[in-house]
Amino acid sequence: MESNNGTTIIVMSGDLDKVFAAFTIAIGAAAAGKETNMYFTFWGLKAIQKGNLTGKSLFGRMMGLLNRGGINRIGPSRFNFGGIGRWMFKAMMKKHKVTQLEELRKTAIDLGVKLYPCEMSLKVMEISREALIDEVGATCGVAAMLEMSDRSKQTLFI
Amino acid sequence: MESNNGTTIIVMSGDLDKVFAAFTIAIGAAAAGKETNMYFTFWGLKAIQKGNLTGKSLFGRMMGLLNRGGINRIGPSRFNFGGIGRWMFKAMMKKHKVTQLEELRKTAIDLGVKLYPCEMSLKVMEISREALIDEVGATCGVAAMLEMSDRSKQTLFI
Amino acid sequence: MESNNGTTIIVMSGDLDKVFAAFTIAIGAAAAGKETNMYFTFWGLKAIQKGNLTGKSLFGRMMGLLNRGGINRIGPSRFNFGGIGRWMFKAMMKKHKVTQLEELRKTAIDLGVKLYPCEMSLKVMEISREALIDEVGATCGVAAMLEMSDRSKQTLFI
Repeated sequence: MESNNGTTIIVMSGDLDKVFAAFTIAIGAAAAGKETNMYFTFWGLKAIQKGNLTGKSLFGRMMGLLNRGGINRIGPSRFNFGGIGRWMFKAMMKKHKVTQLEELRKTAIDLGVKLYPCEMSLKVMEISREALIDEVGATCGVAAMLEMSDRSKQTLFI
Repeated sequence: MESNNGTTIIVMSGDLDKVFAAFTIAIGAAAAGKETNMYFTFWGLKAIQKGNLTGKSLFGRMMGLLNRGGINRIGPSRFNFGGIGRWMFKAMMKKHKVTQLEELRKTAIDLGVKLYPCEMSLKVMEISREALIDEVGATCGVAAMLEMSDRSKQTLFI
Repeated sequence: MESNNGTTIIVMSGDLDKVFAAFTIAIGAAAAGKETNMYFTFWGLKAIQKGNLTGKSLFGRMMGLLNRGGINRIGPSRFNFGGIGRWMFKAMMKKHKVTQLEELRKTAIDLGVKLYPCEMSLKVMEISREALIDEVGATCGVAAMLEMSDRSKQTLFI
């Protein structure tokens, strides 16, 4: 599937709405037959964790405090007053039959979207590879990400 | 105006400074003769609404509460202490004769920049097509946006 | 070093984590032999200031209040409770021997990454060219930035 027409999405944000947008674009790209790679770094790692993010460092534990329960607990970048924002966002998505985030991630994977965790972020945040969902690819650094991006028509930083 | 040298800007943010940057880049691209498309999604829809954003859902109404009066009421992503940030930002722009956001949008349209609302966002936020300014193009999805992007030299996610 | 394989990074954010990501990607690109240009606009200008950002306007002074002491005082976009976030972030980076932001910037410059300040942002924020570090290139506008971007394989908006 090597090409010059791929799509690369760097996901640094851990906000529900932005992660949602990232997966939606990735699915659209994969559905159009494009080689599609997502590179998760910093807060974006929340989107590919198994359950509760279990970084063992102080930083990681704070992140865990604010983010219990994995992808279903991610809040939107606005209106997250005590979780109301997330609840409302998800309620509306449900009402409108918009696919929920976890299903969205599954759809992306099924369509062949590749998910890569940023090596340095894992190290700095003290998150083990085992804390991530099984479907993610090998951890990789900026050089590998840029190679994917060089094969892409569009590279987004989200 | 089909080309391989266009500019595509995905505007997800509704923050004054980011919307300002998006239009500024779009104007620069259009002035350079590039096919320029802006795709407004989620909070970015505020930038192409007629007046007060009138989503009828709870979500939409909350968004309306925080954003009365359309594009002139958008606040910057920082320093928006009770509206002071917006006032200050606009005062400084005026003092320095930097074009205000509404004029900026008009200039973009006059230069041929195309504005597209994201179909799914309109649906999820329960915003009707009529709530948007008349100049916007047909609502479109990710697939159509990616086609524009494939004709582009740069695709920005703002 | 003119090419069609460059990397252009527009840095609008002044958040520690995002500036950190921007320099990390720039270094990776330059190390891979790519023409790498960074264009600093709005809050991003903090990353190329000499010491304390000394905008003389109300806006600039507020920015200075929130950002005393230059690049070492930039806070991350999350967890910046009274500076704790920044301290923690830097402590973790140190513990993990991740290069600090100022060294990161130096490495980028040594590798040939070019840093350009946005002309309009300097004007609006009333920041003089002298307030920026000596290594930055000539101030330039959107047109010049787009020309760099047209020579690039990827243009990121951070």
